[in-house]
Amino acid sequence: MRAIVAHAAKDLRVEEWPTPEIGDTQALVRIGAGGICGSDLHYYNHGGFGIVRLREPMVLGHEIAGVVAAVGAKASRIAVGDRVAVNPSLPCNACKFCLEGRQNHCLDMRFYGSAMRFPHVQGAFRELLVCEESQAQVVADGVSLGEAAMAEPLAVCLHAARRAGPLLGKSVLITGSGPIGALCVIAARRAGAAEIVVTDVADGALSFAREVGADATFNVAAQPDALAPFSADKGAFDVMFEASGAEAALRGGLDVVRPGGVIVQLGLGDEKKLPVNAIVAKEIELRGTFRFHEEFGLAVTLIGKGLVDVKPLISATLPFANPTEAFELAMDRNRSMKVQLAF
Amino acid sequence: MRAIVAHAAKDLRVEEWPTPEIGDTQALVRIGAGGICGSDLHYYNHGGFGIVRLREPMVLGHEIAGVVAAVGAKASRIAVGDRVAVNPSLPCNACKFCLEGRQNHCLDMRFYGSAMRFPHVQGAFRELLVCEESQAQVVADGVSLGEAAMAEPLAVCLHAARRAGPLLGKSVLITGSGPIGALCVIAARRAGAAEIVVTDVADGALSFAREVGADATFNVAAQPDALAPFSADKGAFDVMFEASGAEAALRGGLDVVRPGGVIVQLGLGDEKKLPVNAIVAKEIELRGTFRFHEEFGLAVTLIGKGLVDVKPLISATLPFANPTEAFELAMDRNRSMKVQLAF
Amino acid sequence: MRAIVAHAAKDLRVEEWPTPEIGDTQALVRIGAGGICGSDLHYYNHGGFGIVRLREPMVLGHEIAGVVAAVGAKASRIAVGDRVAVNPSLPCNACKFCLEGRQNHCLDMRFYGSAMRFPHVQGAFRELLVCEESQAQVVADGVSLGEAAMAEPLAVCLHAARRAGPLLGKSVLITGSGPIGALCVIAARRAGAAEIVVTDVADGALSFAREVGADATFNVAAQPDALAPFSADKGAFDVMFEASGAEAALRGGLDVVRPGGVIVQLGLGDEKKLPVNAIVAKEIELRGTFRFHEEFGLAVTLIGKGLVDVKPLISATLPFANPTEAFELAMDRNRSMKVQLAF
Amino acid sequence: MRAIVAHAAKDLRVEEWPTPEIGDTQALVRIGAGGICGSDLHYYNHGGFGIVRLREPMVLGHEIAGVVAAVGAKASRIAVGDRVAVNPSLPCNACKFCLEGRQNHCLDMRFYGSAMRFPHVQGAFRELLVCEESQAQVVADGVSLGEAAMAEPLAVCLHAARRAGPLLGKSVLITGSGPIGALCVIAARRAGAAEIVVTDVADGALSFAREVGADATFNVAAQPDALAPFSADKGAFDVMFEASGAEAALRGGLDVVRPGGVIVQLGLGDEKKLPVNAIVAKEIELRGTFRFHEEFGLAVTLIGKGLVDVKPLISATLPFANPTEAFELAMDRNRSMKVQLAF
Repeated sequence: MRAIVAHAAKDLRVEEWPTPEIGDTQALVRIGAGGICGSDLHYYNHGGFGIVRLREPMVLGHEIAGVVAAVGAKASRIAVGDRVAVNPSLPCNACKFCLEGRQNHCLDMRFYGSAMRFPHVQGAFRELLVCEESQAQVVADGVSLGEAAMAEPLAVCLHAARRAGPLLGKSVLITGSGPIGALCVIAARRAGAAEIVVTDVADGALSFAREVGADATFNVAAQPDALAPFSADKGAFDVMFEASGAEAALRGGLDVVRPGGVIVQLGLGDEKKLPVNAIVAKEIELRGTFRFHEEFGLAVTLIGKGLVDVKPLISATLPFANPTEAFELAMDRNRSMKVQLAF
Repeated sequence: MRAIVAHAAKDLRVEEWPTPEIGDTQALVRIGAGGICGSDLHYYNHGGFGIVRLREPMVLGHEIAGVVAAVGAKASRIAVGDRVAVNPSLPCNACKFCLEGRQNHCLDMRFYGSAMRFPHVQGAFRELLVCEESQAQVVADGVSLGEAAMAEPLAVCLHAARRAGPLLGKSVLITGSGPIGALCVIAARRAGAAEIVVTDVADGALSFAREVGADATFNVAAQPDALAPFSADKGAFDVMFEASGAEAALRGGLDVVRPGGVIVQLGLGDEKKLPVNAIVAKEIELRGTFRFHEEFGLAVTLIGKGLVDVKPLISATLPFANPTEAFELAMDRNRSMKVQLAF
Repeated sequence: MRAIVAHAAKDLRVEEWPTPEIGDTQALVRIGAGGICGSDLHYYNHGGFGIVRLREPMVLGHEIAGVVAAVGAKASRIAVGDRVAVNPSLPCNACKFCLEGRQNHCLDMRFYGSAMRFPHVQGAFRELLVCEESQAQVVADGVSLGEAAMAEPLAVCLHAARRAGPLLGKSVLITGSGPIGALCVIAARRAGAAEIVVTDVADGALSFAREVGADATFNVAAQPDALAPFSADKGAFDVMFEASGAEAALRGGLDVVRPGGVIVQLGLGDEKKLPVNAIVAKEIELRGTFRFHEEFGLAVTLIGKGLVDVKPLISATLPFANPTEAFELAMDRNRSMKVQLAF
Repeated sequence: MRAIVAHAAKDLRVEEWPTPEIGDTQALVRIGAGGICGSDLHYYNHGGFGIVRLREPMVLGHEIAGVVAAVGAKASRIAVGDRVAVNPSLPCNACKFCLEGRQNHCLDMRFYGSAMRFPHVQGAFRELLVCEESQAQVVADGVSLGEAAMAEPLAVCLHAARRAGPLLGKSVLITGSGPIGALCVIAARRAGAAEIVVTDVADGALSFAREVGADATFNVAAQPDALAPFSADKGAFDVMFEASGAEAALRGGLDVVRPGGVIVQLGLGDEKKLPVNAIVAKEIELRGTFRFHEEFGLAVTLIGKGLVDVKPLISATLPFANPTEAFELAMDRNRSMKVQLAF
């Protein structure tokens, strides 16, 4: 069984790993598709992010879907042959946050392909994966495994949309049109946003945003003042999703979000210098959003019912045997949106 | 200028009324389409509802759209020839509720075709209507006046959807599949509901609900126990919209709405006997919803952008010269959904 | 070890029961004080309430405090000699509601002295009680066991106060001035209510409400129109706590709660006939509230810090050896508020 | 009629100004007490703050109370001789924010002693003040004018407390123990906070916090790691009020506020460099709060009913004839809390 293992920055290897054994409550999944996430790219480029660093070789990957190859004795909800999206998040369901329904803040979280704890939690870019049965969500007929593998980043954005509060009829700004920003377009539209404006510094990225329903897009590298008209009367946007991680994007948002408006911060990055007085005077709410919990199942449902369409965002699918090529392609923001690996 | 005037129960007349003069801030609108609402039917059938009774002849109607024929000297936002949906609601914008943003509870509300105050506020089923410019919302090209006249009942349901709190991913029950229930399907779906189940006692009504996106429908006259499976584990629905006004529907909902769930009550009707203990033990929230405010403009926007499609619900359009025929047709729940008058 | 056992309506007996053995995670508590609750009175008077009926002899009681007499091997948070209030609620912490933080809706709840499940969960009016260590909350020095036993009904009211949403500066009506209504005065005041009006049909009950801080009280038996002035401008109260279970109280509240106001229903009782149209037209929210979860610990904290004073509500303390006398006294609403048993 | 006029930084003068004439809906108030606010100190020390600068001589002051000396013909709610607190905020009640109930974001706000617009809105440190009748709130017997003049900063903190969401039972951190921080202690306690911890860099300031009810205080200049124990399990505080304006305070709060917790930012100051990743990973909400609206009346009510006690925070009262002495005293954080002027 082969897996994609990060040994250090710019050192990705396809290695043979032992096939895991499955327990009574588990399932063995033959992975079919795996999406490359921004955090995978951080491990690839920098060997980690912030204070999280690779301290041992780690299998990457947490956006995956496949076919059930075997099930444990007590796993009755799924069956061999089922096509499933696999939730990479495994909270303990016993700590104080789990018992508050905040499983994404679990004190003992196990999340595929994360170096936050040591030993690291090994990831899911591998031919065979063992997961708890509860992590496997059967996908509807007609949904490809590639689409199913989009459930994870879509879940991130559905959770972000919920963090924003009700969106029905709201005017929304999304800064950053990478896979997360573009999926925020889909999530905000599905939640009823009336107007969606997207900014980025790459035209290619913005074309994907338009394809999935943005009402207007602006390249703020080419037109630095593009948002100025939206600052009239203290600001035009009810809600902003900051998906770029750029200080300039967040600062700019403070000018165009209305009094009492909400900024949902998804983008990670360096520390940011902020005019906190603007947050005070306009009573803006800056809310972090982190991963997801029940939104994973919701993402599978919405994709399965055709209530969202994530296909336009899968910009390329490459064989997993040469991951470096796929990772490099994923970093080209003018050509790529979501790059997936085929297993 | 002719208008449709209710003199008493079952006494509708088409009469000549004086053409109103327009003030500086007003517009004259040549009405093109008018939808018959449940309250119009109550005036027609019973001369009122509850303690609200006709005490003088009253022009009916408040779901209207038309073409601007003249504008006052200070009305600069719209122009002659504009196609507009007209908001029947005119709050005072000075009372304590208006200054809280609760204009739908205005202490000095003027709402077309309502006998709540005396003299009654005359309605809008007329060839020529004077309104404040602020009441007129320009509709997008390609939107018919019939669709535009749906903005009003859609606004009711958008407001109801907001009253429900965030709907993204929620499981929703809608009881009653008249125009309001069916528009709740549209509103809930637009707001991101993941599953929508609709009940009614008329198969014809339910077919419209399916056409606008309900996942499942049940005729609870034919299958009184149809909802029983949804009562497992204390209830399956996160949110219920009660749009029938029937005691049985509301009582039934208490069995299938989950602990902490929300019931939004739209339907009017007689007093209802309720097992309040179920509301207590399951911590259900029963929330009234009444008309709308800014949702009128939102309805026009969503229709204009194609984010909702109300066309399937316009089941018939009849000439206004014989209103009785149209009103009688509107009462046939197996044949009719929304019946509109053409002016 | 003696306990107070209900065999049927009006058949309370003090019986010898076996001393329970304690497990590793448990504690043995020598009960010192036990408050008689409305549900205890229902078992005493009627052998149950609603569809919940005694089907076997059941020890009553769930408002208790005592002194730790022994602790299990793995119980390290408390020690022999600690004075504790005991939380009668023991959710499973594994079902879907527990994992949402809604432990009060646990699908496998064990709550002392409740006939909701069979075999019944035996109650805590007994000399020696075994509980999970997690159920025992150490009380501050200077707090009597009688006060500590008030933590349970106070927790009910703190939970109700939270169900009402923010109360800071709100105008509050409380209907029913039994122990729950009176503790709602305390909870609402602690949460910042600016004005608190209480109604009841017994002058004695109302005098307790004034003693714990009500701004005004009305005997609506003597003055049926006492609340009429509060109906001006669609209603004066932001929030109402219905703690009487009487249909007339709830109906009356609909006249005096403002548009958009909240009614928190605590009182149980027969089915009620309600003018649902008033809920619709005023967009009132009727919210059930049921028991509590983390508010038990909060109640112990607030009592311990002197942030609430429940002492005025303990109207009598009688020896447990003659429970019938105590239960009969508890039913006299003009003399009694909370009657406690001394063990 | 004399007034305290700021001509430039460090240039305060007591000058003779013309007695204003009162209109029909206005009142003439003989000012009795005026509190010196942080913004007054900014004008005094720096001639403004941020981009707001003195461009003409401006009467300072907006925390005032006095006695009604005359009323206009149409002012019927108050009478000559009434003792009143005067609300310095006068929104237009016609712009879009006013009609949403967000009067504190009025697009045409007039607020006493503010250089935000030009000509500046002259302030209220004067012997005679004309205000709209609606701005004057009668204070209860037994409340001194000094206490009444505390209504304004208390209103700021009551509004901040509401911005925090429900506080009943919450664990609260307040950083900065100036008048605003100390009044946040009072507001949070009134709203039901169970634990209140306060930090500052001046022991004198912290002693006031303890006097009004803080459970614990820490001098973080003397003990920089004082809050470290509160960072266990991702953070101990549900809510934080940042009332210092210091970057270090806000950054420190991100370590000790729990996942999903709320930080209400009151303090103004320079731009701040923030670890936004912490806001993301812990899903913290950073909410600005700005002035107040209906909380002014609430402040007068709570003081009048004795539900809050602001007296311990009035650290000195000096004659207005020598304002420089009073302003200098107000700047000594170890001796002073709120310094008031007597007129």
